[in-house]
Amino acid sequence: MPGLAQTPEPPYWAVIFTSHRAAQPDDGYDDTAQRMLTLAAQQSGFLGVETAHEGVGITVSYWADEASIAAWKRNADHAYAQYEGRTRWYDRFQLRVARVERAYGFDREGA
Amino acid sequence: MPGLAQTPEPPYWAVIFTSHRAAQPDDGYDDTAQRMLTLAAQQSGFLGVETAHEGVGITVSYWADEASIAAWKRNADHAYAQYEGRTRWYDRFQLRVARVERAYGFDREGA
Repeated sequence: MPGLAQTPEPPYWAVIFTSHRAAQPDDGYDDTAQRMLTLAAQQSGFLGVETAHEGVGITVSYWADEASIAAWKRNADHAYAQYEGRTRWYDRFQLRVARVERAYGFDREGA
Repeated sequence: MPGLAQTPEPPYWAVIFTSHRAAQPDDGYDDTAQRMLTLAAQQSGFLGVETAHEGVGITVSYWADEASIAAWKRNADHAYAQYEGRTRWYDRFQLRVARVERAYGFDREGA
């Protein structure tokens, strides 16, 4: 499970994917979700990802530019996962593509 | 606990707040976090919020414009919560302000 993403100075892009699962144990979701995180991290332009599930699922992935987001959307394995998502995994989801304009962070260790 | 946010057509703004908690039971975090969600929803320009905690915490709030985000940041109760966050609640956090350019959704019910 990834922690907080280390991203460069803005501008860069964020894909905010929020979802509500259709409750179906053993439907292959967890394996595929983990595989998609691993696969996304291998794509050109990938900057990082943050994910948490608690009632709703929120996954925010960060990308260098819009072309990288478009290429990841078209990735064949990812396209199949998108199909599975609509067919059986999700009751509802929202996907938002946003340009990160400003960012700041805090680290107690001062790292 | 809110579910998925119902937001208007883009463009609008997203504040992506991702955090890692300093583990301190009974430190007042849960009450204040809930109070801040309620208070944010009363602010001018607020469009919605989505939040989940699982190892990391992710809260994405949506706003009509940057002025609304700036006003919420300056809100006195919120400013005190920010101070508490740096003083004791969080080990690390990242705050990103992003302009939502595109969005689409899926709803199995077709609603």
